[in-house]
Amino acid sequence: MKIDSVDLFYLAMPEITTDADGSQDALLVRVRAGNYEGWGECEAAPLASIAAYVGPMSHGVCRPVRDSVQGRELKDPRDIGRIALDVEYNSMDLLQAPHLWSGIEMALWDLLGKKAAQPIWQLAGYTRAYSKIPYASMLFGNTAQETLERSRAACVRGFRAVKFGWGPFGKSSVKADADQLQAAREGLGPEGLVCVDAGQTWGGDVGAAAARIPALEAIHAHWLEEPFQTGALESYAALSTGSPRVKLAGGEGAHNFDMARHLIDYGKIGFIQIDCGRIGGIGPAKRVADYAVRRGVTYVNHTFTSHLALSASLQPFAGLADHKICEYPTALKQLAVDLTTNHLCPDRNGEIQLPDAPGLGMTVNVTGLSRYLVEVEIVVKGKTLYRTPSLAS
Amino acid sequence: MKIDSVDLFYLAMPEITTDADGSQDALLVRVRAGNYEGWGECEAAPLASIAAYVGPMSHGVCRPVRDSVQGRELKDPRDIGRIALDVEYNSMDLLQAPHLWSGIEMALWDLLGKKAAQPIWQLAGYTRAYSKIPYASMLFGNTAQETLERSRAACVRGFRAVKFGWGPFGKSSVKADADQLQAAREGLGPEGLVCVDAGQTWGGDVGAAAARIPALEAIHAHWLEEPFQTGALESYAALSTGSPRVKLAGGEGAHNFDMARHLIDYGKIGFIQIDCGRIGGIGPAKRVADYAVRRGVTYVNHTFTSHLALSASLQPFAGLADHKICEYPTALKQLAVDLTTNHLCPDRNGEIQLPDAPGLGMTVNVTGLSRYLVEVEIVVKGKTLYRTPSLAS
Repeated sequence: MKIDSVDLFYLAMPEITTDADGSQDALLVRVRAGNYEGWGECEAAPLASIAAYVGPMSHGVCRPVRDSVQGRELKDPRDIGRIALDVEYNSMDLLQAPHLWSGIEMALWDLLGKKAAQPIWQLAGYTRAYSKIPYASMLFGNTAQETLERSRAACVRGFRAVKFGWGPFGKSSVKADADQLQAAREGLGPEGLVCVDAGQTWGGDVGAAAARIPALEAIHAHWLEEPFQTGALESYAALSTGSPRVKLAGGEGAHNFDMARHLIDYGKIGFIQIDCGRIGGIGPAKRVADYAVRRGVTYVNHTFTSHLALSASLQPFAGLADHKICEYPTALKQLAVDLTTNHLCPDRNGEIQLPDAPGLGMTVNVTGLSRYLVEVEIVVKGKTLYRTPSLAS
Repeated sequence: MKIDSVDLFYLAMPEITTDADGSQDALLVRVRAGNYEGWGECEAAPLASIAAYVGPMSHGVCRPVRDSVQGRELKDPRDIGRIALDVEYNSMDLLQAPHLWSGIEMALWDLLGKKAAQPIWQLAGYTRAYSKIPYASMLFGNTAQETLERSRAACVRGFRAVKFGWGPFGKSSVKADADQLQAAREGLGPEGLVCVDAGQTWGGDVGAAAARIPALEAIHAHWLEEPFQTGALESYAALSTGSPRVKLAGGEGAHNFDMARHLIDYGKIGFIQIDCGRIGGIGPAKRVADYAVRRGVTYVNHTFTSHLALSASLQPFAGLADHKICEYPTALKQLAVDLTTNHLCPDRNGEIQLPDAPGLGMTVNVTGLSRYLVEVEIVVKGKTLYRTPSLAS
């Protein structure tokens, strides 16, 4: 069968704030081939991504992603890999392409899973899916007191692991950060895992990051995430080598396999965090998981949006029993909650089971989403290249 | 003064082909502040880049580039650096941002140069500009005979250096590639410099690249450019170490300083090629040039479009006497020729002198460009976010 259609839906909350909260909007992808339908979600700026799909060709290696996707043969996962290579080459000079392609790739896996009546983790080669311990992923409060309350609330909800990130952390004094960290630990109690996400706040400044290490050690932080920009590999390596008791985590900014590999090999991180909605989808994420296993690094998903994206992000390391914790967003905007009719909720042990249903195992809430739909029209030379398609049809 | 306006103009040839010829379209940037005007050019897919400027915010670190630029204070180059940092942080999750920002950054330098009545190389800290030896940058012919004719033509036009790239090279047999290389050498004669651009054709396959090394050695190739994807640093290092007689070149895909640095440090390339229209403009390109000097690597511009972009790409290494050759596109589409009224032509010694005029020293052909203007309208939620502005007003 051939890929008949790829439809992109820009969804958004009525109001978008400057919080570092990626669940405020979404670019949802629907792919149809034969009698099947698959869904995916880009973790990407919607308008630029839509333009990257429909935009006129600039030259041979700056083609819109559509040129490598529309009408292509789709029989099994190897076809997805072939299309991915073409996207990579034909859209080499279209910087937005990997973020857009990620959602399409996911949707192709979902579709093939439905066709094969298999969950994606099985299609991708795993024989079973291990449950994961979710860490509640939250933003730091504006004050340590707020963080304490959020951490307590997570504990009360049964979470054994939390991650706090962004907000004021790293932006004022070392003392203020230490207070925030103590609050996070106090709320969860002495046993739980506390992860910390610095949100690239120190650029490449190893000294600024190192100044926070004692406070991180004091609360037995499970990891320090993204102290630096994704490309500051030397800074990662220097901090990792100089502070062996606090493992580093990173990778959410990786938009291809090589970037993730470099964080492992050159940056010497201990946890590689991959967002399937950015790295090019499930295929390259699975490659990273395989590589992490070989290098003794722990794979973790990065997910800060809907449970459709969450399911996609769990597939690449579903079969890795020792890679046990998973990011689990707990303060999703209503849009991200409403995106699917089913959700991946902690079981009686507080763990997340991957769906056994075919594909991603998630049902997109087609009727409930129309109120979030952002109408877009792009006209070039008098010709409409994109107009928001109908969710219903 | 403050940045009053940033206008983006999508220009294109009437017909766009799949040739790897980046001069077929352009995204031209006009910035106004106080009584001054500056121009720049993105080496980027125009529609996705326009969307990256106007597109609605997704969240705090996925903001459109406009949010970090419009209305900002602009007094001296440090202000450009400050805005660049904000773009990097505020548009962290907007993948297209660096390509778009590159053209804006260039235009800001042009504007400040005009205000200071200095060429950019002087504003950027160089005390003089050294002339460069242009290499005629061309695509391989479809046959070795075609390549021979193109090489001869370059020789007759007075070029002492050529670069052939893309086309069939690397895509068929080692023998066919050897014939192409011999043709390139024969056309230019024994004295000239012959550079070869493989256009990332071998992905990360060191063996495929190594198979061409004997033929490259036989013609005394000055460099082998982009045998691999930008991220295949281990492949670069392996080929570089295994074939010390053929230096490697790369970097045109770098869209930030770190990527260029990694090619030098991890990839062990001998020539770092920077496109100011992709790496974030003149500031980060100058940082790469400074870094290359410290690491004993030669800086070269990457330019395959107009002389506005060519002038911008020469500024970052204008003051480096030993970094002597420059890319010089010789088969530009008429659009790229028409983009400026003045051009950087070889002098009586066959060398390129940087303009002494303020800013980029180039005059945009405002009236002549209207016939290339691609009309675009982007409407989101019933509101027009972008409509092609007037070149004349």
